[in-house]
Amino acid sequence: MWSEPLLPSQPLGRQIESRLRESLRSGAVPAGSRLLSTRSLAAELGVSRGLVVAAYEQLAAEGYLVLRRGAAPTVARLPAQSPPRAVEPDVPVSWARHNLRPDLPDLSLFPRAEWLKALRAAVTRAADTDLAYGEPFGSAELRHRLAPFLARTRGVLADPARTGIHVGSTHALSVLVRAAGVRRIAVEDPSHRWRRLALQAAGAEIVPVRVDADGLCVDEVPGDVDAVLVSPDHSFPLGVVLSPERRRALVARRGLIIEHDFDAHFRYDRPPVSALQALAPEQVAYVGTASALLAPTLRLGWSVLPERLVVPAARAMAESVFAVARLEQLALAELIERGALDRHLRRVRAAYKRRRALVCAELPAAVGGPVGLYLRVPVDDESSALERLRAKGFALDGVRANSVGECEGGLVVGFAASSEPALRHAVRTLRTML
Amino acid sequence: MWSEPLLPSQPLGRQIESRLRESLRSGAVPAGSRLLSTRSLAAELGVSRGLVVAAYEQLAAEGYLVLRRGAAPTVARLPAQSPPRAVEPDVPVSWARHNLRPDLPDLSLFPRAEWLKALRAAVTRAADTDLAYGEPFGSAELRHRLAPFLARTRGVLADPARTGIHVGSTHALSVLVRAAGVRRIAVEDPSHRWRRLALQAAGAEIVPVRVDADGLCVDEVPGDVDAVLVSPDHSFPLGVVLSPERRRALVARRGLIIEHDFDAHFRYDRPPVSALQALAPEQVAYVGTASALLAPTLRLGWSVLPERLVVPAARAMAESVFAVARLEQLALAELIERGALDRHLRRVRAAYKRRRALVCAELPAAVGGPVGLYLRVPVDDESSALERLRAKGFALDGVRANSVGECEGGLVVGFAASSEPALRHAVRTLRTML
Repeated sequence: MWSEPLLPSQPLGRQIESRLRESLRSGAVPAGSRLLSTRSLAAELGVSRGLVVAAYEQLAAEGYLVLRRGAAPTVARLPAQSPPRAVEPDVPVSWARHNLRPDLPDLSLFPRAEWLKALRAAVTRAADTDLAYGEPFGSAELRHRLAPFLARTRGVLADPARTGIHVGSTHALSVLVRAAGVRRIAVEDPSHRWRRLALQAAGAEIVPVRVDADGLCVDEVPGDVDAVLVSPDHSFPLGVVLSPERRRALVARRGLIIEHDFDAHFRYDRPPVSALQALAPEQVAYVGTASALLAPTLRLGWSVLPERLVVPAARAMAESVFAVARLEQLALAELIERGALDRHLRRVRAAYKRRRALVCAELPAAVGGPVGLYLRVPVDDESSALERLRAKGFALDGVRANSVGECEGGLVVGFAASSEPALRHAVRTLRTML
Repeated sequence: MWSEPLLPSQPLGRQIESRLRESLRSGAVPAGSRLLSTRSLAAELGVSRGLVVAAYEQLAAEGYLVLRRGAAPTVARLPAQSPPRAVEPDVPVSWARHNLRPDLPDLSLFPRAEWLKALRAAVTRAADTDLAYGEPFGSAELRHRLAPFLARTRGVLADPARTGIHVGSTHALSVLVRAAGVRRIAVEDPSHRWRRLALQAAGAEIVPVRVDADGLCVDEVPGDVDAVLVSPDHSFPLGVVLSPERRRALVARRGLIIEHDFDAHFRYDRPPVSALQALAPEQVAYVGTASALLAPTLRLGWSVLPERLVVPAARAMAESVFAVARLEQLALAELIERGALDRHLRRVRAAYKRRRALVCAELPAAVGGPVGLYLRVPVDDESSALERLRAKGFALDGVRANSVGECEGGLVVGFAASSEPALRHAVRTLRTML
């Protein structure tokens, strides 16, 4: 290890220390072997003894060397280690030639300039105290801007004091499961498989309940569930709207309802129907997200909760992530305040309406509700169809792929993620392949 | 509800709809009552019947009205609701006249301009695909910048492929508990109470183990624990450094070790001792955070994991928050790349070194290790001392307040959070009160 001369340009002590560390890590010097005394090594290297003493002490403190008064320094016994190998974790977000993902907005329309402006305002105006841990339930600034926005655009009875901020809606769901102590939860079947995974990881048992043309079959919800997870304005992946009768029946059941409002801002035939939460604010926990409105990577979600769940939810936040990053909360508050979020929403809604019409025209078989970012194309053999399409570079989802029980097969075709020309090309290619 | 005339300036349909909705929400119109027919109401209001039909249909879809062919529209039965009242969630971050918090850096030194520059670069350069959900284990850009930084500054054997990004180190701990399936975990006693709460919430049973002058009493760790949580370079709140013998003994135990490295970047007598993880990278999961380095509100934490835990940890990330916000990951990568993080670290380390010396000079009773952001002042009756001080506007912590077993009382005095003048004033006031 001393074959190479020390470089006069760099601190000698650090060079000695790092070379010793490397050789000890490498296992080149077996455990128990005695090293040169500090005096001899200093002489051999032609450096002051103090430098070697400091290096030995540093390595002893790190556990590589054993130093004993009056004894020669010896190499400590380290457990055998396999050298770190590169292992890339599984990466679920894939990009395809034909992007028909039902869970993504058009990311090329993300208002970068507006978001950057909002971030600048946040970083500039934030008080020093805003840079600390922050409130687990969300920053007051955002809660006071978001609540009126949700009231105005989704008819939520949103009191800022019960409006919470989370790391996306997936996180909001797991926080709610803990806050309300949910053990068994009724979930639409089919419904998004990621959602079920998050609920199970939070400790809830999933009870699938059938979805028909009127939405969740409320009378089939077992009496012993603690909660019901439902997307009244637009179920995934069937795109069914919960009928007025079912909405009333669901609320009449009493018991906690979690309303997952993932993309109901996108209604194309008339103004969106008010959130179910407004019918029973003490019974319905409303959950929404910036993923479809702006971009998933912002990891911003929100909830409007029955009063009794506010403090438990704040606790569950503190115990999972402590709080959501403050500067991004201030930026979203700024975006709402400036009306930039409303402008963005109007702009993308118009674009998505055209794209939805395009898919309906090109694929007469396509069915789906008047809300959301995707349509459904019935197919007999879903899994083989998906396999064939994915092999050809299509990114899209399937109905049965999101179902635990029996249901008809179908392709879930997202029309928002791709530009009109790309969408037209993808849908025509799809048609020829069916 | 029609006492006020409709405003010609606004869409009549929306006015009719919202007035109806308000009156139905308010409960002014009892359930079951019949409303005017669309024809009669239209006549009364002097508007076209179509407007009233549309408003009734909207409210029926929202569940407020029941419409039946040939029958008069009736008001639906809604469950009684207590009106939403303002309830502020508990907010643990408090600000005091004398800020001696041991868990905060000096937030007035946060490099706002550099961070904003880095955010701008991130928002500008990010690809559209970077705005999607992102990789649960962290963005490749940050993992490849962070790993060498941790190797250089903390001696971590950091392979980017096993370096994960989390929502702060609290989140990293709960992700690790799930990824490794930890049921019983040995924890230093005393150690930070928030940490224990997060571990318990993640499903782990806490087994407190004594800390003496050499750090965690490794030989008192029960054989049946699945993991040991330890801060070898600086335990909280005692500030004890784990001795070389104990480091070796801990590694020799086999079994998972979680090394929580919360502020060991701040060593004032010599370069920081290398992370324990470097002794046994397949056995030690290293956990760090940007909270002490930059600011807690960034909610950025990281882990360097044994290879076998990488994929399970990525799953646990996906099931809790899905992933960490991408733009902030890119910004931190940028900050490291530009050397701005190193410059910041040098700058604050120098400032904190002076502040530490100041506290030692003003409070001769203060004791603590050579690392970290706080010192300890032994007191006989900790709880009454804390009570008296907090009443006088001090924010500081206590030793026993963070202990589950028996241990000597003490004040935990942070010297980083306040400027030198403020710190001097606070510490002198504190001295007069003891």
